[in-house]
Amino acid sequence: MGQTPTERPFERIAVLGLGVMGGSLARALAALDRPPRVTGWSPSATERGAALETGLLAEAPEEWSAALGEAELVVIATPLRAACDLLPSVAAAAPRDATLSDVASLKAPLARAAAEAGVADRFVGAHPMAGSAESGFAASRADLYRGAQVWTVAAPAAAARVARVHALWRSLGAVPVAIGAEEHDRLVAVASHLPQLAANALASVLAAAGVEPGQLGPGGRDMTRLAGSSPEIWRDLLEHASPELVRELRSLSSATARVADLLDARDLDALAELMRSTRAWRRA
Amino acid sequence: MGQTPTERPFERIAVLGLGVMGGSLARALAALDRPPRVTGWSPSATERGAALETGLLAEAPEEWSAALGEAELVVIATPLRAACDLLPSVAAAAPRDATLSDVASLKAPLARAAAEAGVADRFVGAHPMAGSAESGFAASRADLYRGAQVWTVAAPAAAARVARVHALWRSLGAVPVAIGAEEHDRLVAVASHLPQLAANALASVLAAAGVEPGQLGPGGRDMTRLAGSSPEIWRDLLEHASPELVRELRSLSSATARVADLLDARDLDALAELMRSTRAWRRA
Repeated sequence: MGQTPTERPFERIAVLGLGVMGGSLARALAALDRPPRVTGWSPSATERGAALETGLLAEAPEEWSAALGEAELVVIATPLRAACDLLPSVAAAAPRDATLSDVASLKAPLARAAAEAGVADRFVGAHPMAGSAESGFAASRADLYRGAQVWTVAAPAAAARVARVHALWRSLGAVPVAIGAEEHDRLVAVASHLPQLAANALASVLAAAGVEPGQLGPGGRDMTRLAGSSPEIWRDLLEHASPELVRELRSLSSATARVADLLDARDLDALAELMRSTRAWRRA
Repeated sequence: MGQTPTERPFERIAVLGLGVMGGSLARALAALDRPPRVTGWSPSATERGAALETGLLAEAPEEWSAALGEAELVVIATPLRAACDLLPSVAAAAPRDATLSDVASLKAPLARAAAEAGVADRFVGAHPMAGSAESGFAASRADLYRGAQVWTVAAPAAAARVARVHALWRSLGAVPVAIGAEEHDRLVAVASHLPQLAANALASVLAAAGVEPGQLGPGGRDMTRLAGSSPEIWRDLLEHASPELVRELRSLSSATARVADLLDARDLDALAELMRSTRAWRRA
């Protein structure tokens, strides 16, 4: 199967935001056999300097607009709110035919912003299911996206651009999957935001009980790793949280209360049954 | 500092139970520069065969009593209930001066069993904060205990035996810490059992919402790994669960409901404050 025109690799890519997500993207692109020319921008001079020093970027100007140059693809890799705010200006300043993308973990707000800016036909949003509880360029890694599922969303008018964006992610070892923006955000509310807030709730209870992180075993460490996530990034995401997330948090509260009731009643059969069913789910 | 007589390495050790905990202990002992003679037993002929084939054990007889031989230390590495049941018979069948130990994650039931059997002066219980969501000898590893904290409990009458048990765990790279049995069980209820049941509750909600494990990101995978733990092992532990665990589960249920309320009210300041406080706790 030859390479179709729509899958021709992007030769010039601009990455706006050089934190864990954008930094890792720049690193992964630089590690390709035939790396594209990547320009980058971060509001932090330190991050711009670090990315330049690492040799990942052709340029990292102080103004984001100067990083757009002749980019065929512009990836906005900032937190959600900044991405929504930047998208219209980026669309206006970028080369007329450039594909616009992002990496935020909610997609409906970006899809709306693209529609409002009149660039729904150029926007192919992405949400890589990868990240780190650490933040900033220092926590970025060339292999962050290897093996990760990457959800992509595009309006019908941008359908022709999807294959090329998928080919890019595949070249980085990721697994792109197209999905509707609303459906994506409902799924992510449960699969990603619910575990995050569950970790915060659990950590707050452990802290109140006087448990120190060093007293946790490997399981307790797993269960609280997300409690170290960035409040700044999550504030934006939670602002746009799906009503589904509130509903599922209440379900989790009830499920936890039910476990307490079963334990209080020493209903070991029911507890063992719960554990068998979650083990079967986990192994499926 | 010379080696005191109480820290003289055990030369003959019997390990009863060859699952993740006992199997890993046998592997770690075999990997020592001057390995002791280790005999082992498992109710499963397959596990006995596997441990013998791996060359870890001098013997692995079909009857546990035959594995005791001239052991200076007997470690009961079965699930909690079996350990409590076995302890009196093991104490009676083991060499008269052998130190008795175990690796179960609750210590008060074992301490009681030792007192009832009249062997509190020979019992030094241990709880390594290490394990695996997988079970059985196949999941055992020589480095399971490396870096792990190991709680030890001993009645005053057994105090003279503690240093030697600590020296054993230190030789395996673990960090032994003495603690009272009741205090240990209260701490573990919160630091270990609460995260376990929180994972089960979260997994049950994700499963009910139709989320598949493959749709989880790294955070969601962390948060559900424990949902794969063995119901058989946990049934025993939960039977002896501290009242503190019920109380903390109710706190977790309330904390989760509060997060739902804050999100429903879009009180992003309070949510960000919660995340900042749990991040500070996690990094402490």
